[in-house]
Amino acid sequence: MADHIHPIFDRLLTRDDYEQRLGQRGKVLWLTGLSGSGKSTLAIQLERKLFEAGFFSKVLDGDNIRTGINNNLGFSEAERMENIRRISEVARLFLDTGIICINAFISPKRAMRDMARSIVGPGDFIEIYVNATLDICESRDVKGLYQKARQGMIKGFTGIDDPYEPPFAPDLEIRTDLVELEDGVDQIFAYLRPLIALA
Amino acid sequence: MADHIHPIFDRLLTRDDYEQRLGQRGKVLWLTGLSGSGKSTLAIQLERKLFEAGFFSKVLDGDNIRTGINNNLGFSEAERMENIRRISEVARLFLDTGIICINAFISPKRAMRDMARSIVGPGDFIEIYVNATLDICESRDVKGLYQKARQGMIKGFTGIDDPYEPPFAPDLEIRTDLVELEDGVDQIFAYLRPLIALA
Repeated sequence: MADHIHPIFDRLLTRDDYEQRLGQRGKVLWLTGLSGSGKSTLAIQLERKLFEAGFFSKVLDGDNIRTGINNNLGFSEAERMENIRRISEVARLFLDTGIICINAFISPKRAMRDMARSIVGPGDFIEIYVNATLDICESRDVKGLYQKARQGMIKGFTGIDDPYEPPFAPDLEIRTDLVELEDGVDQIFAYLRPLIALA
Repeated sequence: MADHIHPIFDRLLTRDDYEQRLGQRGKVLWLTGLSGSGKSTLAIQLERKLFEAGFFSKVLDGDNIRTGINNNLGFSEAERMENIRRISEVARLFLDTGIICINAFISPKRAMRDMARSIVGPGDFIEIYVNATLDICESRDVKGLYQKARQGMIKGFTGIDDPYEPPFAPDLEIRTDLVELEDGVDQIFAYLRPLIALA
């Protein structure tokens, strides 16, 4: 078997092989916004809509990342960067497998999202600003986190005692305080569709 | 939109949704063995054979992991464990997406592989011992690593100055010093096929 052992790089299936099989182009969607802005809800519904339209996508969010690969990371500045770095690398692995990877993370700092874009590759990175006013997000308070932050039980909570830096020029902005969920999903889908269609 | 925001767990597409779409069951194959034993070569050829048979798999190996998500890890004992932990978590994400994830890593210690099995879930973890004698592996020395280890330029090299702990009861053992590459691939494929077939 020794004769058959070669460097691996040019021998694995390529992203194009996977994409042809799946009948789509892979992309990385990056949903950023305050806690409670609706990122995960949009991600879930978008995944479903894509699936029903014959596309294959994968959602990464706090629930499957913070409990798994990033379960040994805290919330210091450095750990938050490392959190986003690992997520970006995982997203790239899905991208390289031809999959549409939908990421739903607050990712409050521009530097974080710039790093994510750089790891994924700018041509495949779609930044979506999921925007609702802090008042609205706080009034939703799905997980009771804003209340805890206001009571000082959580420190460094984005929007309360840690700033959120909105994207300067997102590829899309979804105003979840102004549009219905379904319309928000449709906006993303309409934007995405030509980008994931095979030529 | 506030009314539509719910906890995410039961709303995302399930592994079964993905599996039905791909027409297969996801599994995690874990190829362990000495450097030069042929893990990556088997992984590459297996991926290709699966693909041609209509299955969808993904290879994780040093080339796409050590240069990506684990590019901030060295080779201390703790970092080697963390290396395997992160790989296992990535494999689980692919598994949860219905994909057959083929992992090719020396993973020399039983404790490492036990951790991997535990993260992936024992029912989905297939341990494959890629076995060739040290002499054979060293004579192949594809990347010149054995030579460097013998010269003391690499410390803690598995098989030279760091022990390899063979699996006690692997699901499969492929003797790459005794069988042809194609036969090794066929052995794995034959074992795997009933496990990835949809009922």
